[in-house]
Amino acid sequence: MAELTFEFPDGNKKEFNRGITVEEIAKSISVSLAKKSVAGKVDGNLVDVMQPLDEGGKIEIITSGSEEGLQVLRQGAAQLLEAVVKKEFPEIRIGEISADEDGFYVDTDKEDRQVSADELDNLAAKMKKVIKNDASVKRVYLTKEDALKEVDGDPYQAKLINQINSDNVLFYGIDGILTLAQGVVAPSLKDLKHFKLLSVAGAYWEGKSSNPMLQRIYGTAFYKEAELKADLQQRQEAKERDHRVIGNNLDLFFVDPKVGAGLPYWMPNGATIRRTIERYITDKEIAHGYQHVYTPVLANLDLYKQSGHWDHYREDMFPPMKMDDDEMLELRPMNCPSHIQIYKHHIRSYRELPLRIAELGMMHRYEKSGALSGLQRVREMTLNDGHTFVSLDQIQDEFKKILNLMMEVYKDFDIDNYTFQLSYRDPKNTEKYFDDDEMWNKAQSMLKGAMDDLGLDYVEAEGEAAFYGPKLDVQTKTALGNEETLSTIQLDFMLPERFDLHYVGEDGKEHRPVMIHRGIVSTMERFTAYLIEMYKGAFPTWLAPKQVQIIPVSDDKHGDYAKAINEKLRAVNIRSNVDERSEKMGYLIRDAQTHKIPYTIVVGDDEVKNNTISVRKYGEDNSRDLSMDDFLMEILKDISTYSRNDEKDSSKVDKVK
Amino acid sequence: MAELTFEFPDGNKKEFNRGITVEEIAKSISVSLAKKSVAGKVDGNLVDVMQPLDEGGKIEIITSGSEEGLQVLRQGAAQLLEAVVKKEFPEIRIGEISADEDGFYVDTDKEDRQVSADELDNLAAKMKKVIKNDASVKRVYLTKEDALKEVDGDPYQAKLINQINSDNVLFYGIDGILTLAQGVVAPSLKDLKHFKLLSVAGAYWEGKSSNPMLQRIYGTAFYKEAELKADLQQRQEAKERDHRVIGNNLDLFFVDPKVGAGLPYWMPNGATIRRTIERYITDKEIAHGYQHVYTPVLANLDLYKQSGHWDHYREDMFPPMKMDDDEMLELRPMNCPSHIQIYKHHIRSYRELPLRIAELGMMHRYEKSGALSGLQRVREMTLNDGHTFVSLDQIQDEFKKILNLMMEVYKDFDIDNYTFQLSYRDPKNTEKYFDDDEMWNKAQSMLKGAMDDLGLDYVEAEGEAAFYGPKLDVQTKTALGNEETLSTIQLDFMLPERFDLHYVGEDGKEHRPVMIHRGIVSTMERFTAYLIEMYKGAFPTWLAPKQVQIIPVSDDKHGDYAKAINEKLRAVNIRSNVDERSEKMGYLIRDAQTHKIPYTIVVGDDEVKNNTISVRKYGEDNSRDLSMDDFLMEILKDISTYSRNDEKDSSKVDKVK
Repeated sequence: MAELTFEFPDGNKKEFNRGITVEEIAKSISVSLAKKSVAGKVDGNLVDVMQPLDEGGKIEIITSGSEEGLQVLRQGAAQLLEAVVKKEFPEIRIGEISADEDGFYVDTDKEDRQVSADELDNLAAKMKKVIKNDASVKRVYLTKEDALKEVDGDPYQAKLINQINSDNVLFYGIDGILTLAQGVVAPSLKDLKHFKLLSVAGAYWEGKSSNPMLQRIYGTAFYKEAELKADLQQRQEAKERDHRVIGNNLDLFFVDPKVGAGLPYWMPNGATIRRTIERYITDKEIAHGYQHVYTPVLANLDLYKQSGHWDHYREDMFPPMKMDDDEMLELRPMNCPSHIQIYKHHIRSYRELPLRIAELGMMHRYEKSGALSGLQRVREMTLNDGHTFVSLDQIQDEFKKILNLMMEVYKDFDIDNYTFQLSYRDPKNTEKYFDDDEMWNKAQSMLKGAMDDLGLDYVEAEGEAAFYGPKLDVQTKTALGNEETLSTIQLDFMLPERFDLHYVGEDGKEHRPVMIHRGIVSTMERFTAYLIEMYKGAFPTWLAPKQVQIIPVSDDKHGDYAKAINEKLRAVNIRSNVDERSEKMGYLIRDAQTHKIPYTIVVGDDEVKNNTISVRKYGEDNSRDLSMDDFLMEILKDISTYSRNDEKDSSKVDKVK
Repeated sequence: MAELTFEFPDGNKKEFNRGITVEEIAKSISVSLAKKSVAGKVDGNLVDVMQPLDEGGKIEIITSGSEEGLQVLRQGAAQLLEAVVKKEFPEIRIGEISADEDGFYVDTDKEDRQVSADELDNLAAKMKKVIKNDASVKRVYLTKEDALKEVDGDPYQAKLINQINSDNVLFYGIDGILTLAQGVVAPSLKDLKHFKLLSVAGAYWEGKSSNPMLQRIYGTAFYKEAELKADLQQRQEAKERDHRVIGNNLDLFFVDPKVGAGLPYWMPNGATIRRTIERYITDKEIAHGYQHVYTPVLANLDLYKQSGHWDHYREDMFPPMKMDDDEMLELRPMNCPSHIQIYKHHIRSYRELPLRIAELGMMHRYEKSGALSGLQRVREMTLNDGHTFVSLDQIQDEFKKILNLMMEVYKDFDIDNYTFQLSYRDPKNTEKYFDDDEMWNKAQSMLKGAMDDLGLDYVEAEGEAAFYGPKLDVQTKTALGNEETLSTIQLDFMLPERFDLHYVGEDGKEHRPVMIHRGIVSTMERFTAYLIEMYKGAFPTWLAPKQVQIIPVSDDKHGDYAKAINEKLRAVNIRSNVDERSEKMGYLIRDAQTHKIPYTIVVGDDEVKNNTISVRKYGEDNSRDLSMDDFLMEILKDISTYSRNDEKDSSKVDKVK
């Protein structure tokens, strides 16, 4: 037998016979290691401890309780769950099952009705029973032919088996049931003590909406009870903060995949927030010297061939539409080529630079349906987009100006939970990066210089720049823990070349400008999702869809007074309403709180008599008696200063700086 | 020979032999009629006076000097022009030639360079010379084969000949040149005395942008010199008012067919006007109880199958995009189905009605490239759209409310040149109209009642209603004389059926609402085009892209004072600029006038000393010395009252009420 060489994490190398298993390798080090081992990792790939190895490489022994053991533990939970549902529902079909840092899931498909959330406790109890009776996991290898016979009648399993590149198909035998190995499982499930089946949700087979929808059962598992508890609590918090949940509760938006996946409808409440953001950022940019434009979402495909998007970005683009005249029209994936048209429409002079073009630019990107999520991942989006055309020596100054604009905006929205990343080229990688050493060096040092001048902290990432130039990204996290780019400033040497842009310099000659792509508040969709999660739905007064709810104690006696107040507030453009429903006072006040309306005003006999109003601000425990003038002063100041309500401090507790 | 029966306009009938000509028929009435006759009309189709007729029908004799003779006169001018250019440029190719109520044109294509505007006078002179020498027009019939030989080397003429449904191809022989008959011409060109070659412009062969671009020579002709003069003057005025010309002069927008026909780019100046209109109408609608939303431009094609657009409106829609998941996505041609999604997202109660949903909704309509024109006819447009959902007995009240909103808006924009048209069904046409007598009767009388209550004049048009309900249109005319709909209110009984809409009534049962489609200021594109033409580019201060231009007499001495004024104006959101160009004062002032900026401020020694400004309002002859405070009061009042500048009265002269 030929010999295999394995290298251990400490650098030591050892030789073994072909066909050796991870368990045996572990045993060769120590019996206790072998006992603790739940899987191996060879050249970065997880392998079953009992799998005969036929190639050497770098090897690690994954042990129970370790970080990487967690995935093995969860895969065990998934395979166990599969075995349990198969025993419970013999006719059930099983799709993908998987484990990762978030937990595990098993895709199921039942003829008559799908597995429901009510059944999860029962299934979990059955899982526990199996572990108690016999936690061992048998390894059963079948030929492909036998494997297909084993899963007879289950088209998903059959397809999975046919995709396996070997005639030796591994099944894990649990409680007498064979389950197709879709990951690596420990020899025993005895460590599986702290797990929870979380939820069920529809998931398309292979992630394609043209395929049948299976029922995905989600769960998670940990080695320690405390870890499970902490995770469950975190999930609960994320759920409360999840913009899709709040968006539904506050009637902000909805998505209906039947009418169009990833295509949100903004209800009046959400639309008010969006309109306020749009006007705010437009006015702010105009005050900062930007010229706002409107450009079409459609263009001849040639435009995106010239820009390079069609060659390098095609898979994210919508299919072109062939028109009667053989013209090919394309929904734009980015606004840059449109703004280049604006630049090119006139001969430009150095006197016009920096020329700042901005737009609330609608774009379309073809995200896979599985990746879509509420307002965060959509297929149609409106970007707060801007392109500044500068000369090479204006880069640093313009970069600072954009940063200042960004900081002003962050302050107004009270955003403080983010990090800066400067991305440079890898100077050794001459293929990936636009070839102009001088430009790169000059541009990168200008970006760094500007950050230093402004005293901003940042991390530097070599090799993370775009092909066409260095950039700054502002990173933040969603409630579900996904990293997202909130703002970006990107230098671009390439598009000015591709579109042959120039300006007439002071010397009367033609020069090439540099283009700076910048987004301050990203897309309206993503930014609104971000704000919903950051504010937990309790929008500051200036953004709140409803700013004031007026509740008359008795509609008959105090209704007119309430309406008069309402008129006064509306006259100064405050979004105010009278709640005329004939419900109990307590209910109406709670309802206003539930909808997180910044100000609730109650008017009764005292208020009418004294010509005052009783005001309760959201997040405050008590109401205050105010004259109408004092209240107007307070709320108008609240709005004009973009001030955030008092829940702010409590919400900051769980921010990670 | 079989006999043919002809009926004359007075009802008399006469029989003639097959093969008779119009000339002979005219002669049979009187010799003088035959002398004056330039063409005939049989069953509505123009025929050559010398064409042997082989079918009878209603006949008219078209005489020289008549309204219908004009088209014959102009066709003669076109054929003559063709003959002249063929003699002048023997290698030239001839495309379509045509005459109508607007004039005539000849499409030409020359190998080396196209015919240019400089050559028009020469060509016109040659045309006059031909008429003087020999005004006769010979009729030459060729077989198709011979005709194709005659036009050898001209692919356009060959294609036109091949499309003729007869082996007898008529050519008009003028000055020894054979020209393919593309219309009907009189036996002599002697009446052609007052004509003018107007311009040249590119025009695609067969109107398709994938075909070669020919050079179209435009001209017009009249029987009387006074008519020609009046027409030329009107053309000049229309040109001065043409939104495409003004749009270019004031740098408001551009369209580049290479990047996308009918897809305008709004430059910063135009975008400022549009943004001001958008905010104005949104705020106005919200004040009138509308709830603004944002809905996606894309939807699953099924939505438009359900709405009926795909069946009845397909030719105006863009081709669907087939996605990976076999989903068909479609750019929406209208916003109604989107707003129906908003309605359906909740169970609705009678308490919520009238429910008013509004949006600046982007839509795409596939207009033929030949029909596209500036901002007036485009393929991507944003409609000031709104849909009100009402119960049947709320129609009249809601209709009045919409009319009141419309009147308020017209007043603010100073629009007073329009007519109302109420369109009813034709009760006899049961196929064309939605079948519900009671609804039609009730709805039509409600619309009429509302108009009468408000004391508005209107015309009634039976049989002009949409399939789905009666409507009111507000009609106006563009500078080029095309009729356009500015606003519309349409009742719709059909879509609520198709989408099974309902609300819970006071009786606790489900009822069907009626939908009212309404647009106040139409699309942003069309409305801006309309305003450009109505104001002749001299926008009222509140809409003007630049509101104030400040000119320091000397940049060194008065520049700081100018900048301080500028800052004060900008602080209250006035769109103000300092003109720092080192040009002569007179030039700068004229330039501000040319750009129709509402206020020009000049500051020099006196103004700095006295702490005043010298203000000249657009349209006024003299400037006034004002304190800054007085000026601020004046301009802010100007803006807040939407007041129009003094050119108003002069521009109203040529309005037709």
